[in-house]
Amino acid sequence: MLKKVTILGAGMVGKAIIHDLVPKYNVTAVDIDETALEYCRDNYNITTIQQDLNERSSVSKIIKDSEIIISAVPGYMGYKTMETVIKQGKPIVDISFMPEDFMKLDTVAKKHKLTAIADCGVAPGMPNIILGYENQNLKINKFEYMVGGLPKERKFPFEYKAPFSPIDVLEEYTRPARMMENGQIISKPAMSEPELVYFDGLGHLEAFNTDGLRSLLTTMNKVPYMKEKTLRYPGHIKLIQALKESGFFSNNKIDVGKSKISPVEITNRILMNNWKLGDTEEEFTIMKIILNGLSGKKNLRIVYDLFDQYDKETQFSSMARTTGFTATAALHLISQGIFTKKGVFPPEWIGKDEKSYNTIIEYLKNRGIIYRKSTEII
Amino acid sequence: MLKKVTILGAGMVGKAIIHDLVPKYNVTAVDIDETALEYCRDNYNITTIQQDLNERSSVSKIIKDSEIIISAVPGYMGYKTMETVIKQGKPIVDISFMPEDFMKLDTVAKKHKLTAIADCGVAPGMPNIILGYENQNLKINKFEYMVGGLPKERKFPFEYKAPFSPIDVLEEYTRPARMMENGQIISKPAMSEPELVYFDGLGHLEAFNTDGLRSLLTTMNKVPYMKEKTLRYPGHIKLIQALKESGFFSNNKIDVGKSKISPVEITNRILMNNWKLGDTEEEFTIMKIILNGLSGKKNLRIVYDLFDQYDKETQFSSMARTTGFTATAALHLISQGIFTKKGVFPPEWIGKDEKSYNTIIEYLKNRGIIYRKSTEII
Repeated sequence: MLKKVTILGAGMVGKAIIHDLVPKYNVTAVDIDETALEYCRDNYNITTIQQDLNERSSVSKIIKDSEIIISAVPGYMGYKTMETVIKQGKPIVDISFMPEDFMKLDTVAKKHKLTAIADCGVAPGMPNIILGYENQNLKINKFEYMVGGLPKERKFPFEYKAPFSPIDVLEEYTRPARMMENGQIISKPAMSEPELVYFDGLGHLEAFNTDGLRSLLTTMNKVPYMKEKTLRYPGHIKLIQALKESGFFSNNKIDVGKSKISPVEITNRILMNNWKLGDTEEEFTIMKIILNGLSGKKNLRIVYDLFDQYDKETQFSSMARTTGFTATAALHLISQGIFTKKGVFPPEWIGKDEKSYNTIIEYLKNRGIIYRKSTEII
Repeated sequence: MLKKVTILGAGMVGKAIIHDLVPKYNVTAVDIDETALEYCRDNYNITTIQQDLNERSSVSKIIKDSEIIISAVPGYMGYKTMETVIKQGKPIVDISFMPEDFMKLDTVAKKHKLTAIADCGVAPGMPNIILGYENQNLKINKFEYMVGGLPKERKFPFEYKAPFSPIDVLEEYTRPARMMENGQIISKPAMSEPELVYFDGLGHLEAFNTDGLRSLLTTMNKVPYMKEKTLRYPGHIKLIQALKESGFFSNNKIDVGKSKISPVEITNRILMNNWKLGDTEEEFTIMKIILNGLSGKKNLRIVYDLFDQYDKETQFSSMARTTGFTATAALHLISQGIFTKKGVFPPEWIGKDEKSYNTIIEYLKNRGIIYRKSTEII
């Protein structure tokens, strides 16, 4: 069993990861923010290193004695960090959700005979694992999931708090949404096709297209229909579209007094301010994963439902727990020798392995994160 | 009859005024914008003077040979301009809608034995004239009007174009709305009490409180209930409130790169850009004035309805025509010796004079601007 873990990035999710790992592992936390590290030392009595992880050589030095790495750095730093770790021959679980194609590192990972798992959070992550698993038993003709992290309190006007970086949320609202339709990869505008979806006990939420399928567009290209939708309280997305349509997200600089400013710079600041999730603010994560497919001659509809809430006891947000514990479940697979293949893996390839799938589902269940599966013949 | 008229300000409304006056008057137009003046010369063959009207001594020089002045300068320049004109002994009609109390100039105006009429547009203006008139016959217990200038085409997200300065529109959205309730002047928040109001042939519009009563709060303080509401397409005001509530109208400077910018500076620029009324864009002005009162023992409800549209032939916007022609009607009263009292007058004091009221209603009717009056016993 691998024991020595280094967490790169001790932000909201990083802390939940540390909380989960400390009982069993020897954990070192690295971040540029001393306050975050202080929290880790005070609460978990672990080794911390203050370091700007943008510096490649420093990362290399820091992980020298580690046996396995979890990378929870911001997306833009993700690829470089993963490359450094793999080149140094260390296994890694990554939840940076980098824009680059992590499969380019597969050859180096194989050369070093190590396991690297990328995109392994609540979403991307769990829908991939579930699709990978169900795809072993079913000829899937449609895969769709809806996911959202939302505050319990609905405050005018946005009725939203970002349980992760608000800048990454805005990225979701601007990047065209790639999806699979009729076996072809197509793009639809960001925020397109809003629809009201009813959730028992919650009422209606609004689902709209976002660009979250990532590796699935390549690895699961036999599934003719695949899409991701993001969930918000109704009205939120119309307000974002109003801002976008009227120019508040424009990158074109305009003269204001003696300065040149692009509206998006101000808009980002205002939204970050509005969307800041309070430390003990109640929020929840909701996800519905729907798979249609043939099992023999039976047409099945399989639904996985997740509803997870802020944990008052540990004060971890649901988004931090559902994302962080998926990553620690993946780390568990590697460190315990349950998943032993070498190379870089998107989560769907972990799900293909029945034992790994079962272990992850069970691991999360033990932490109160329950994916309720239901199957019906249609 | 006074013949020599100088128009200070040849903007949207100023041009409609010139158009109306040239057949009968000797008109000089003054503006800082040479393009506007070129338009006036080309279309009306009048004398033009390019001048920054912020300079008091220049105004004085320019109006030296004029017999009567119309001031259509921006609100912030209104008081100073009116003061200069009156001190020089010239009669004036003002549609600058200045924030200051123009009644402070009454003594000087009386001393010079001249007539000055302020706030004399479509609103403020016509509701005042009508209230002043009806107040002669009726014991009025309630006076309310709703008014809006709106584009024919409803374009997402604002469904609005500003037929006058967008900055002045924003001013309406931020200044608390003073009104009369139960004989007391009270203030309600800007944009408060939105309600849907049905207009035949137009559908529903949204009416909300704005601060337009101005002089009426003093001159008509015997009327126990008075309020102004502004009309927009439904949803517009909610979007403005969303911007306001989330901080887009904030005056607090924030650091962006090396600059300090207050969000409102960017927001104003974006809204001005979105709300710019196209030169030949179709718009309309809608107003409903409701008076409840006692005539002897009969409880009457008197309603005046105005619906006026963009004039394709002259290419003048409805807002320019309805505002500008109310001002030229007032000029007509002075120049023809119909209204002969001396001093500074808010429009309600012009309306008190039956002949002046009838002249104005007739003057506007001849220009296609029709106030339909209906009376019912309630």
